[in-house]
Amino acid sequence: MELCAQNLDPFYPGSCRLRSGWDGIMLRIICLTFMQGSHETDYVHRILSDIKIPTPILAFHSRPLFAKSATIMNYVSTAVTPAISPFDHLGLTDVTAKLEDSILIVTLNRSRKLNGFSEKMSVDLVRVFQFGDQDDRVRVIVLTADPAAPAFCAGVDMEEVARGSSLLGRKEDSETEHRDPGGQVAMAIYNNRKITIVAVNGHASGAGLTALQLPFDFRFIWSGSKITMPFVRLGIAPESTSTYLLSRLIGEARAAAVLFSGAVMQPDSPVISNLYYQVLPNRTDVLPAALILARNISTNSSQTSISYSKGLLHHPGASIEEHHLLDSRAMKILGSGNDAAEGAKAFMQRRKPNFPDTLTKSLSPWYPWWKITDVRHPKSSKL
Amino acid sequence: MELCAQNLDPFYPGSCRLRSGWDGIMLRIICLTFMQGSHETDYVHRILSDIKIPTPILAFHSRPLFAKSATIMNYVSTAVTPAISPFDHLGLTDVTAKLEDSILIVTLNRSRKLNGFSEKMSVDLVRVFQFGDQDDRVRVIVLTADPAAPAFCAGVDMEEVARGSSLLGRKEDSETEHRDPGGQVAMAIYNNRKITIVAVNGHASGAGLTALQLPFDFRFIWSGSKITMPFVRLGIAPESTSTYLLSRLIGEARAAAVLFSGAVMQPDSPVISNLYYQVLPNRTDVLPAALILARNISTNSSQTSISYSKGLLHHPGASIEEHHLLDSRAMKILGSGNDAAEGAKAFMQRRKPNFPDTLTKSLSPWYPWWKITDVRHPKSSKL
Amino acid sequence: MELCAQNLDPFYPGSCRLRSGWDGIMLRIICLTFMQGSHETDYVHRILSDIKIPTPILAFHSRPLFAKSATIMNYVSTAVTPAISPFDHLGLTDVTAKLEDSILIVTLNRSRKLNGFSEKMSVDLVRVFQFGDQDDRVRVIVLTADPAAPAFCAGVDMEEVARGSSLLGRKEDSETEHRDPGGQVAMAIYNNRKITIVAVNGHASGAGLTALQLPFDFRFIWSGSKITMPFVRLGIAPESTSTYLLSRLIGEARAAAVLFSGAVMQPDSPVISNLYYQVLPNRTDVLPAALILARNISTNSSQTSISYSKGLLHHPGASIEEHHLLDSRAMKILGSGNDAAEGAKAFMQRRKPNFPDTLTKSLSPWYPWWKITDVRHPKSSKL
Repeated sequence: MELCAQNLDPFYPGSCRLRSGWDGIMLRIICLTFMQGSHETDYVHRILSDIKIPTPILAFHSRPLFAKSATIMNYVSTAVTPAISPFDHLGLTDVTAKLEDSILIVTLNRSRKLNGFSEKMSVDLVRVFQFGDQDDRVRVIVLTADPAAPAFCAGVDMEEVARGSSLLGRKEDSETEHRDPGGQVAMAIYNNRKITIVAVNGHASGAGLTALQLPFDFRFIWSGSKITMPFVRLGIAPESTSTYLLSRLIGEARAAAVLFSGAVMQPDSPVISNLYYQVLPNRTDVLPAALILARNISTNSSQTSISYSKGLLHHPGASIEEHHLLDSRAMKILGSGNDAAEGAKAFMQRRKPNFPDTLTKSLSPWYPWWKITDVRHPKSSKL
Repeated sequence: MELCAQNLDPFYPGSCRLRSGWDGIMLRIICLTFMQGSHETDYVHRILSDIKIPTPILAFHSRPLFAKSATIMNYVSTAVTPAISPFDHLGLTDVTAKLEDSILIVTLNRSRKLNGFSEKMSVDLVRVFQFGDQDDRVRVIVLTADPAAPAFCAGVDMEEVARGSSLLGRKEDSETEHRDPGGQVAMAIYNNRKITIVAVNGHASGAGLTALQLPFDFRFIWSGSKITMPFVRLGIAPESTSTYLLSRLIGEARAAAVLFSGAVMQPDSPVISNLYYQVLPNRTDVLPAALILARNISTNSSQTSISYSKGLLHHPGASIEEHHLLDSRAMKILGSGNDAAEGAKAFMQRRKPNFPDTLTKSLSPWYPWWKITDVRHPKSSKL
Repeated sequence: MELCAQNLDPFYPGSCRLRSGWDGIMLRIICLTFMQGSHETDYVHRILSDIKIPTPILAFHSRPLFAKSATIMNYVSTAVTPAISPFDHLGLTDVTAKLEDSILIVTLNRSRKLNGFSEKMSVDLVRVFQFGDQDDRVRVIVLTADPAAPAFCAGVDMEEVARGSSLLGRKEDSETEHRDPGGQVAMAIYNNRKITIVAVNGHASGAGLTALQLPFDFRFIWSGSKITMPFVRLGIAPESTSTYLLSRLIGEARAAAVLFSGAVMQPDSPVISNLYYQVLPNRTDVLPAALILARNISTNSSQTSISYSKGLLHHPGASIEEHHLLDSRAMKILGSGNDAAEGAKAFMQRRKPNFPDTLTKSLSPWYPWWKITDVRHPKSSKL
């Protein structure tokens, strides 16, 4: 019964069976009660289908309750048998994913279309980053592309736009109804509780520089990459929350220069260079460099400590005093945890730490402490 | 009747006549009803005088209703005949202005006084930047000085201060009544919906580095410029909203160093260098370099796209989620506009775009979406 | 009766006597009435003890009423005779302090413990920075360490943590009760109304890079310093309000890289270099370089102008308009002050200024204009 979440994948069922001793009806009630508004609902739904308990179809579009629902996931994962082959169940087409040790490597999969940002790519990216957020085995998520592709990402797929996709807003959508797919991806990455790294091994335009670079914790790039945010030259709005992120990341002087010039730059331009953690001379060097950092972090860092650090950085108090209350509380919580004990012991013994805590099992109910705005449109929230 | 705003200048009347078919009384009512609190009121007043309809004198000091009043301007511009010689009517003395294609070039005109920042200069700058904001023909505004002048701007005119000007607050003003003239200029530039560029071709101190540099989208500078914010060495407050802007532009570490040292720097100092888009070796190179960028932007960029981009950058949501709602809506609005259609077509046909939308005609009623604080003092708002 | 605060030290009594003509009871009532919640309470308490007026013991933990209580301090300072030997009375052990002209030099005093951040060090630092804030003679505060010490500061003293100190939260503290000692230090420095400079002449880890560097106005450092924020590698939270400050200081891109990598860097790393005002090649060069700036500022700057400048930078308005109201008011207040008159005169006469205004005597009742969150825990606030 005390199955560790690492040993099974409740999120991509397929051959799920209810374990003996578990009451399917009770499980279903728990799920439906607590999972309201959560993204995992449809995964749970699939599990519940597998175990032959009919459930009403629930569809949700945002991700507000991740942390809370982790508890539920724990119930589910102890109640059902392991599924097989996780990524098959995510239905990925425009990206591929593989898990190497604790590093989830995601690769853009539209090389022939210049890795153009498609609606399906946005759906795939949201799914796979949410998988990485939820699965305790994942400690770092790395996004990259085939270094032989003509581009890392040439921006939104203009052919798809011409065919009337939702990328710039569907015709039938009202002004307040549109939800920018790039923004959905940006939120899934920026709000991720694991470390996120992007390895930009080619040219990048539009969404390839906004959704696919700005929300990450670390950006590695090929020195020869041509990068640009051409929005003002296309008569459209800068998307993917780029006007929010860019200014926070490198300051408004640089953000304005990048956005309003619409110029094509290279990573060593002083206008944009502060964005990058490391610039590599060859396209094939970028992913390996990113993986060195990824392995270093995944081996040496505490999952809970990282999630709190990201929360504190992204959601600071309104003043130094309010922030002092937040990080004091975070310190008290983490300082009493198993990871802090192991961290101190490993430091004293001059050895690598082996942190036992995970987000599923060890996150305090206080997390997340900030208010999360529900971005769903009223029309769909009634589902 | 469907006169394009580009073809006439309602803002600087002089020989205005009511067009046949228009009712002057109706026009006056429209104006007085909708223009409450708008800066253009006195221009409209002059127009109304020209067309022999007496109006009460209305005086206003802030700029809260620009966008809304654009609609009114449209009424006015279709109701009256073109005026001649726009800049004559702005009554400029301490700056000069000329319109070259879609670039409004503004030049400081107090060389013999080291281009000292005077009360009249602040009035002139507010007027001319508001003209640039309102006139659809203007796509970029460039501020510069005579490269042969002893300074780009040596700060507030201390002689004027000694004579009791309003620059540091008039004696008769109460503590809450003073409105910093440099701040008025900074707001007229920072809130401008067109691209603003400053070409700093000489030394700059105080307001010459605050009001006349920080609020711009792009800063070009001569490498030999000596620049300083000497406020703490003069016993006065840093003005022109510089403590607001500097930290946003280059981060608080650099902002503190610039402000609290009061040191004289050059543009290549790491403390300040992030502020500048381009540093030029000769004073005479600065304006030409700025004009290359100005022409590039004015030729290739959409006016509506720029105004939304500036709004999103200057008025971000309180969280990534809230910002996602803002830029999704901006994208839906712009994505359905004529400029986006032209932008996509030009991109496909690999030619320069010819954007048809203008702020006067095409700005959505949603813009501006942010709350604008009225900075007028109660004493004057009763007018 | 019109004694200048410069001439006596009410904050570190010892041989205090009530001046003739003063009523001790009245003085006590004034103090107890107005000093509620202020840190200076215990200094005042000691003064009152010296003058043989029994007072109830008042203990407070935050610093919300500094500015207001300056008025009270003025009463006290005119009512009692000068004390001797200020620093004896602060009870410093883990730091030393000396006042050279108007520069307060504070030196970490735990060289044999690698200057490890101890609970007592945090108490000493809060006291000595509050002393510097309150004493009009102090214009600049410089923190440094012995350049021959093995480290500038090796982070929290792990032995003390193992002994159950409050550094990471005491066992008996509840989740909301812990107040991070590093954060207390950070607030005492960041909120200081005098210029603060740190001279980092050795390696720095954890609190040595957070509490002891980030809240300062200027950071000088030895180029060979190894610096790191190892929190995620120790399973604890980043402390000392570092997640608040770092992002504001150098932007979120760099802040994330420093925090989430937990890497050991040197000051010339592009990831962290923007933090530093000056990087010196030898350990022994760091303090002298810092003192050159300290002397320059203390000789040439206005105390009131600096306090307003820091307030405007740290507490900007919510928009450029709101900030315009703030800095206009600050300008009107300072522009009418003695320092502005002296500043203008000195500027005209091309001589050094001799600013007469001080915080104790000359700060406007409007200062501080921002809301200060009380960080005390309800349990202790009832004292």
